[in-house]
Amino acid sequence: MYLSNYFLPVLKDNPSEAQIKSHQLMLRVGMIKQSSAGIYSWLPMGFKIMKKIENIVRQEQDKIGAQELLMPTIQSAEIWKESGRYNDYGEEMLRIKDRQGREMLYGPTNEELVTEIFRSSIKSYKSLPQMLYHIQLKFRDEVRPRFGIMRCREFLMKDAYSFDLSDEDALLSYNKMFLAYLKTFNRLGISAIPMAADTGPIGGNLSHEFVILAETGESKIYADKRIFDLTTEKYLLTKESLKNMRLDYEKYYAVTDDKYNEKDFEKNVEKNNRLITKGIEVGHIFYFGDKYSKPLKGSVALQDGKKVDVKMGSYGIGVSRLVGAIIEAKFKDNIMKWPLSVSPFDIAILPMINKNDNTNMIKAKKIYDELKKNNIDVILDDTDENISSKIKKFNLIGVPYQVILGKKSEGDLLEFQETYKETKNLSLKDIIKIILTEKNLI
Amino acid sequence: MYLSNYFLPVLKDNPSEAQIKSHQLMLRVGMIKQSSAGIYSWLPMGFKIMKKIENIVRQEQDKIGAQELLMPTIQSAEIWKESGRYNDYGEEMLRIKDRQGREMLYGPTNEELVTEIFRSSIKSYKSLPQMLYHIQLKFRDEVRPRFGIMRCREFLMKDAYSFDLSDEDALLSYNKMFLAYLKTFNRLGISAIPMAADTGPIGGNLSHEFVILAETGESKIYADKRIFDLTTEKYLLTKESLKNMRLDYEKYYAVTDDKYNEKDFEKNVEKNNRLITKGIEVGHIFYFGDKYSKPLKGSVALQDGKKVDVKMGSYGIGVSRLVGAIIEAKFKDNIMKWPLSVSPFDIAILPMINKNDNTNMIKAKKIYDELKKNNIDVILDDTDENISSKIKKFNLIGVPYQVILGKKSEGDLLEFQETYKETKNLSLKDIIKIILTEKNLI
Repeated sequence: MYLSNYFLPVLKDNPSEAQIKSHQLMLRVGMIKQSSAGIYSWLPMGFKIMKKIENIVRQEQDKIGAQELLMPTIQSAEIWKESGRYNDYGEEMLRIKDRQGREMLYGPTNEELVTEIFRSSIKSYKSLPQMLYHIQLKFRDEVRPRFGIMRCREFLMKDAYSFDLSDEDALLSYNKMFLAYLKTFNRLGISAIPMAADTGPIGGNLSHEFVILAETGESKIYADKRIFDLTTEKYLLTKESLKNMRLDYEKYYAVTDDKYNEKDFEKNVEKNNRLITKGIEVGHIFYFGDKYSKPLKGSVALQDGKKVDVKMGSYGIGVSRLVGAIIEAKFKDNIMKWPLSVSPFDIAILPMINKNDNTNMIKAKKIYDELKKNNIDVILDDTDENISSKIKKFNLIGVPYQVILGKKSEGDLLEFQETYKETKNLSLKDIIKIILTEKNLI
Repeated sequence: MYLSNYFLPVLKDNPSEAQIKSHQLMLRVGMIKQSSAGIYSWLPMGFKIMKKIENIVRQEQDKIGAQELLMPTIQSAEIWKESGRYNDYGEEMLRIKDRQGREMLYGPTNEELVTEIFRSSIKSYKSLPQMLYHIQLKFRDEVRPRFGIMRCREFLMKDAYSFDLSDEDALLSYNKMFLAYLKTFNRLGISAIPMAADTGPIGGNLSHEFVILAETGESKIYADKRIFDLTTEKYLLTKESLKNMRLDYEKYYAVTDDKYNEKDFEKNVEKNNRLITKGIEVGHIFYFGDKYSKPLKGSVALQDGKKVDVKMGSYGIGVSRLVGAIIEAKFKDNIMKWPLSVSPFDIAILPMINKNDNTNMIKAKKIYDELKKNNIDVILDDTDENISSKIKKFNLIGVPYQVILGKKSEGDLLEFQETYKETKNLSLKDIIKIILTEKNLI
């Protein structure tokens, strides 16, 4: 992509209406645009990043055998009355009357609708277990939307639902999701800690939230920092292995402030392992047994014909929220560095362009073509801004690798910079090798 | 995928509530499930097909330089008042009041919102042309939703918008889209005829709808059948070439019944070239100049500082509707054949399974693994249904290739069937070659 063709309305200054850095940055570099309170359009670069996150979330769901479907955004109030949540949900639910006067709503979550799909599709215990998910817009009519897409009204969420015959089977589904979440966040380049959590309005008796560290986070975190040394490679999708995974993670103290207890923290965590910081919730998983299957009649027939309510769990990841959360975690000293897995481009070429001399531009285009040939997604800043403005701008855009063609650009060695690191003089061949290696393509 | 694991609730009989064949088939093979009047969930197989269609639509938009973004579903009424369409739109617009009492709506289309994005992002003539699109849910509160996802209320649509400085430039954008549409429908395995159309509530003075032939279509079609001999390979994305493309297509008579004139038809089309059939609209493109940019102040500054309203067009494809439209075009004599480009699977393995003999199942799994190794997307019917039920079921599911392991399945030659064709005895190697060739992978 040539920058002059790209729909990327970069602002000169930080927008005054934004209070947190992700909101500032996303407006500043033209990733989003507010259309009304708490409702945003995703402009091409923001959309591209969100799509990359969505695809990683999807792949990890598929790997544990969850199947993707798509439930609609507009739901009938009927099933919410069946579950008893229609009144409970309060004003956050966007309630709608259609032209026939029927009571509808914009789904804030999908336990009811998915249970209704399940009950009309699955009749026998033989068809269990089932895991279904979708990546769909949700609407929650926040009384005071703020912080850009971090606490907005219309947002994109992955929500999955598991259906099992017994508590024991359901725990296996729960633990599979637990592992999928760890792997997902790992691929997104962020450290997410699973923390035992309250179940809130979803209900149930087992729940974890996944929190990433960010100094600007909404909740305070107290943790044993050794939890970050854990890696997921060794766990398999078996009951035994996943049980061990849970034990390994639960060995380390990690709570948000609502569960914090000073004595426990000091007793359980050695002084030099104590980490007190802030975090942002990016995922939440729940096990709630028959809370919805019972009122909504989500049952299957056993071998003897007897019917039993299925045991359900639900599992959310805030896909659009993750875009902001990654910025909160990674944007430091006015420099953003997207993890390569979700970066809008792999590399940027920033040529210094002299009005009377097109050597740098010709060179830039050659490099561009060569990178493209190697399936590297490259953006070339062909605008007539001066080179220091270009560098400053791309520090905000956050493409992790840059080739800078400055005054002294001569010969075959190129000025190559990985964000936060020293510049190096490398051949194009070596640059291509570095990026393809990082992308796991060679 | 093993069928026993797949969330595919196939019904024994045709559902009585469905009047047209796409609606019947989609319910019958568990592609969709109605959640309320005119609102459907897309179950895994239906979703997968829709996603494949969506990706082809996306790729062809990207090829002509359109950039993808994502506008929200819920819009403020304000901009619709600015354009003057808030009252015009009538009851089909789903109007909503949020908790603060603000007038909102579920977007039925996006001319207003995209113009608002444009006007706050693009200031100079130098940044033109621009083409933006999104693939987003829409809601139209049909008074009588019917025909399944063909005339439903919540649906998925690709809508693109072009912004140009002059009528001449705008015509180039229009023609690029025209070509992208022809290529898109071609890749979807359907013949779409562009027909000059009325502009309706969108407004403007140039418009084409793209109609595919289907005996069950909603509108009658009168055409010169030589239009189907035209192919798109020779056209380039240049003014001249695209002008020729338009002339080539417009040479042949093709109208829907509202524009039909018997005398014209008989005068312009030789008897043996006359085609009278029915069709389904799957795309519609409009050029409307400054109809929206004028009231919404979508202007750019010229070199001399003078401001000029940009010339706009809009371009829709009914992504979810296409799923039904392809069925209407392809489902014949109770046999469905998905074009390979959008088929839920490339090939199905249907083994006859004997309770006391697992030879066929072992063989089937071996074939399955080998196909998977070759990146072929395969479904294995591992259920205990008898072989004729399996064949009947897969005739509805519509996977275009099948390997049948019957009673006499012995040796290395396999019973291979392409839908509608004679069965052949082929080696697995040859079968793999056929499919990879069809997928353009070798």
